[in-house]
Amino acid sequence: MTERGLFITVEGGEGVGKSTNIAVVEEWLQSRGIAYRLTREPGGTPLAEQLRELLLAQRDESMAPLAELLLMFAARAQHIQQVIEPALAQGQWVVCDRFTDATYAYQGGGRQLPEHWVATLETLVQGELRPDLTLLLDAPLEVGLSRAGQRGSLDRFEIEQRAFFERVRGCYLARAAAEPDRFRIIDTDRPLEVIAVEIQRLLTAAEAER
Amino acid sequence: MTERGLFITVEGGEGVGKSTNIAVVEEWLQSRGIAYRLTREPGGTPLAEQLRELLLAQRDESMAPLAELLLMFAARAQHIQQVIEPALAQGQWVVCDRFTDATYAYQGGGRQLPEHWVATLETLVQGELRPDLTLLLDAPLEVGLSRAGQRGSLDRFEIEQRAFFERVRGCYLARAAAEPDRFRIIDTDRPLEVIAVEIQRLLTAAEAER
Repeated sequence: MTERGLFITVEGGEGVGKSTNIAVVEEWLQSRGIAYRLTREPGGTPLAEQLRELLLAQRDESMAPLAELLLMFAARAQHIQQVIEPALAQGQWVVCDRFTDATYAYQGGGRQLPEHWVATLETLVQGELRPDLTLLLDAPLEVGLSRAGQRGSLDRFEIEQRAFFERVRGCYLARAAAEPDRFRIIDTDRPLEVIAVEIQRLLTAAEAER
Repeated sequence: MTERGLFITVEGGEGVGKSTNIAVVEEWLQSRGIAYRLTREPGGTPLAEQLRELLLAQRDESMAPLAELLLMFAARAQHIQQVIEPALAQGQWVVCDRFTDATYAYQGGGRQLPEHWVATLETLVQGELRPDLTLLLDAPLEVGLSRAGQRGSLDRFEIEQRAFFERVRGCYLARAAAEPDRFRIIDTDRPLEVIAVEIQRLLTAAEAER
């Protein structure tokens, strides 16, 4: 029987350097010859990417926070069935740019929906599925927001106010504190080379612990 | 304080005559000078109508039944917040072409998702909101399917197999039997004039009972 792949999620707020550091993860996987699937949420399948567009688009009609939460989990249900579970079952590692911790952080922390609503949907949609390792990229708010602002036009989440992002970051850090075995907090307010070495070390440890 | 409007839903499988009989409901409301809002599910707001399109479209990627269920409730959360609750609070009656009984019938009965999943989402999204009156239009399967087939191109639900629609109808009838105070079953395999008189009588009774 094929050994199940590892499920790694990369989390963090705006401008914390997800793209750059996901590239580090990919290079490490390639250097080790590990088959993997890089994907993202919301998204990861054609239908889920259509939902992502709906979620990020600015429109005249304001989106009910609960509708947003349900759309996130609808996209996730599709993504898990079509992509994540099949890949893990085939022995591929799955690297996912954001997953359910982001829902706790953005819809729970940011939008202040009750945490137990998120937990109810997590159980419904994921059953026992949880990431094996979560890399939480963290930087002070000033650093992240100034980086995100340099990228040009902002989506529906990026235009939120500072207090929103404070709550998002606080929620991420609280979740990491509550699950130290799964989370690794990576301070991204440091030189890229230093961060890359730390990520490579964490992945090597995760592979050894399998 | 404005008296809250009545929330009336019209339910039924394919080809049972919803459009024709909703027109009867509208004529009655107009004849009584009752302010009302006619709407439908999935849909009823621009965003929810976009979700309706996603739900009904045929595509290469099969939709996970749980994703479908969550999309239905995402559209519903939006519809309730933007349309249904404001209208009822203003004293308008709301006439909705399908609502949560359809989710029990199609996603629960038809797709055979666990009923308690639907119930969990119903509680999350609706709180205490339930229809005051549900008109269940019912006809033998042969009658409904032959009518639906005459309408031309079929959507993702209409191309399901006969056993699917048997389960949908069975679920609707079981729900009506379990909640006789809310449901009225209307046999639509009869002349339109006879059905119209029955609907007018039921609405007159509902108005008197307020």
